[in-house]
Amino acid sequence: MAAAPILARRIARSGVLPLCCRPPSWDRAPRQPPRLPLAPCRAFSNNKIQVELDESSGVAMMKFKSPPVNSLSLDFLTEFSISLEKLENDRACRGVIITSTIPKIFSSGLDIMEMCGKNMEHYGEFWRAVQEMWLRLYGSNMVTVAAVNGSSPAGGCLIALSCDYRIMAENPKFSIGLNEAQLGIVAPFWFKDTFVNVVGHRIAERSLQLGSLHPAPEALKLGLVDELVPEEKLLEKASAVMARWLALPDHARQLTKSMMRKAVLDHLVAHREEDIKNFINFISKESIQKSLRMYMEMLKKKKS
Amino acid sequence: MAAAPILARRIARSGVLPLCCRPPSWDRAPRQPPRLPLAPCRAFSNNKIQVELDESSGVAMMKFKSPPVNSLSLDFLTEFSISLEKLENDRACRGVIITSTIPKIFSSGLDIMEMCGKNMEHYGEFWRAVQEMWLRLYGSNMVTVAAVNGSSPAGGCLIALSCDYRIMAENPKFSIGLNEAQLGIVAPFWFKDTFVNVVGHRIAERSLQLGSLHPAPEALKLGLVDELVPEEKLLEKASAVMARWLALPDHARQLTKSMMRKAVLDHLVAHREEDIKNFINFISKESIQKSLRMYMEMLKKKKS
Amino acid sequence: MAAAPILARRIARSGVLPLCCRPPSWDRAPRQPPRLPLAPCRAFSNNKIQVELDESSGVAMMKFKSPPVNSLSLDFLTEFSISLEKLENDRACRGVIITSTIPKIFSSGLDIMEMCGKNMEHYGEFWRAVQEMWLRLYGSNMVTVAAVNGSSPAGGCLIALSCDYRIMAENPKFSIGLNEAQLGIVAPFWFKDTFVNVVGHRIAERSLQLGSLHPAPEALKLGLVDELVPEEKLLEKASAVMARWLALPDHARQLTKSMMRKAVLDHLVAHREEDIKNFINFISKESIQKSLRMYMEMLKKKKS
Repeated sequence: MAAAPILARRIARSGVLPLCCRPPSWDRAPRQPPRLPLAPCRAFSNNKIQVELDESSGVAMMKFKSPPVNSLSLDFLTEFSISLEKLENDRACRGVIITSTIPKIFSSGLDIMEMCGKNMEHYGEFWRAVQEMWLRLYGSNMVTVAAVNGSSPAGGCLIALSCDYRIMAENPKFSIGLNEAQLGIVAPFWFKDTFVNVVGHRIAERSLQLGSLHPAPEALKLGLVDELVPEEKLLEKASAVMARWLALPDHARQLTKSMMRKAVLDHLVAHREEDIKNFINFISKESIQKSLRMYMEMLKKKKS
Repeated sequence: MAAAPILARRIARSGVLPLCCRPPSWDRAPRQPPRLPLAPCRAFSNNKIQVELDESSGVAMMKFKSPPVNSLSLDFLTEFSISLEKLENDRACRGVIITSTIPKIFSSGLDIMEMCGKNMEHYGEFWRAVQEMWLRLYGSNMVTVAAVNGSSPAGGCLIALSCDYRIMAENPKFSIGLNEAQLGIVAPFWFKDTFVNVVGHRIAERSLQLGSLHPAPEALKLGLVDELVPEEKLLEKASAVMARWLALPDHARQLTKSMMRKAVLDHLVAHREEDIKNFINFISKESIQKSLRMYMEMLKKKKS
Repeated sequence: MAAAPILARRIARSGVLPLCCRPPSWDRAPRQPPRLPLAPCRAFSNNKIQVELDESSGVAMMKFKSPPVNSLSLDFLTEFSISLEKLENDRACRGVIITSTIPKIFSSGLDIMEMCGKNMEHYGEFWRAVQEMWLRLYGSNMVTVAAVNGSSPAGGCLIALSCDYRIMAENPKFSIGLNEAQLGIVAPFWFKDTFVNVVGHRIAERSLQLGSLHPAPEALKLGLVDELVPEEKLLEKASAVMARWLALPDHARQLTKSMMRKAVLDHLVAHREEDIKNFINFISKESIQKSLRMYMEMLKKKKS
């Protein structure tokens, strides 16, 4: 995965350098004894995402904080991938809980602005960043728990699907699903593969064709999320689930996870450039551009 | 799919030319305004199947009407494939609802008469027609809804499984399933693949080995059909479901459907001739012929 | 499957020759009339497993009887494979019910003693015997019903998963699952494939990563077992299920079973030597040996 150069380029271009508040002496700090009254905690954040790692538990809390709707822009995706990479390489980190600071929204999915009225090179760069994010998250060695505290369409749903466990706020107004078909676009094969691995072929076939957004109770019934809890208990529950997963030895758990996900990950890695070309060709079509413009108009009218 | 020559040959041989009551001027008739008091409607029918296309909605109603039990004879399959092809090529048609005019029977499946006491060439021609029907239906670009208003064993079940959505009459006397094993024969791999895509591996493994015919309530529980409604509301419900599926843009929905079904379709296309040879070899065996003759005797006794 | 030489070698080495109480005249005994007051019955048993074949029904009862916990030692596996082979080759046998004579335990899975502190050659021989058992059981032409009358972790669960049908005693104290991850080891890919074929990808992914042991009621809910009955009715129920499966013609049922399981069986056959090498490498690691020693210490302490 040749992610590093792209990420470096994005950082250079955007001028956003992830701020790391980890003290220089940290690495040598003893991991024992844990559970100090105030647990030692490394934190870093950037424009879009805030991360805190509780060293005593080995659990990082990652919060999307990109108003208005945590849409997955090129910048957001880049920062997301960088954050994942940092945690992955941090031996003190064994698991990450992903949630949102924006009320009612987990993530609204891919940023349509990045797919509309831009040039081919931009589309390519954008799509590579989407792939990169998914390869890192779906293939992560860490335990990943999604605490879905708001609606989560399309790319937002993909993030949840890529985690090891999904807990959603028990609110029928929040919905989740791969609704690309509603916008006249098609979820790529690896979105589909990830979806099928969670809900099975039949539910995926129907839900993808209809571009369904499933209200939380329905999402539970379909197996799209693992459980529902009242919103105020979401993080508490996520921590409890995480503790249960971290009770297992990392090595065996990681090899098992890799065994389950390898085929689907390898499929994208083997067809990555082709997938980018397909995306560029598809999204550049005038008919698709028109669809997306209409959709954006609709969203604007809704807002005003 | 080299279907056209075969179909043409069958038409020439059987002397059945699909009757098309579409007026010559129709093509130029404005599609707007729809919803005339009597909606414009193209209809065609043949000996076995009756089709009406409601141009205002883009939905065709296809009714099997081949007494006594809508069995899938070579003629029936040929006319079914021709009907599907006509609708597929008709830009006014976006979806098709498939149902039966025969009380208590949707379709009884492959016509045993075509598999018993005939020569090898006939078996080959018959099997190619079964393949052709499935390739057209499972791979259709249209939205396909099965309104299963009666029992639907074996090939009848395959037709339902190949649609996008299955609604069954809420009558525990009606049953559905791939019951080939009960007759001493084996469902071919693409029947199996279609089944697994709907109900998953475990349910398929058990149901296929037992040759189970599942009463409607059980079929719902297993996911073999999507919902049950009282028989008198079946077509109304099918139309409502169809409207929901047609609310999506065709292009994205079609690409999504193709993505979900391509692997299974391609598998048969790649092994089509081999599959025909296998069928001929299997069905020509004296032991299998004997099984089928016994089964037909049993059916005859039941009748009298 | 080059099992015979290995099995022969094992017999020679262990000095355990399966005792067969089948009278010499048996083969020529008429299979009709069945249902004598005392049904004709062939029995054989060895140190670990006892088998009785009821000729009138064609059903063999196979009982694990290797105290304390029916662990799958090299000897046990060898005798299990031999017993399966004998039944498979016996035309009078059409199905086998597998259960345990040990209270509260179906089988505790692979014998850790065989994986700890031995040499590489031993590990290889042991692993080949595990593969052999699974290839015979998962690929059996007989109807196989597991009557799970006790807990069934790891390899014990694999045996149940490899059968055609699983009935478990309705006792929440009995649990079943592939809990390898809890011991710091990884279920091999063909354990995983067998599991996925029963419960689907999502449940398998979660359960394998957590090394979950599911209490009977949960196992039913997940589809890991097909039904629960009170322990005293287990064998009666298993016989009733078996009769239902045997009502089908053998040939069609066998071909159907093979069609469903072939891909997964072929996968191991194609990678068998590689899988043995992987096992040897993995199990020989000092870290893994240490894990297993700790686990054994824990078990010993529990006992005393």
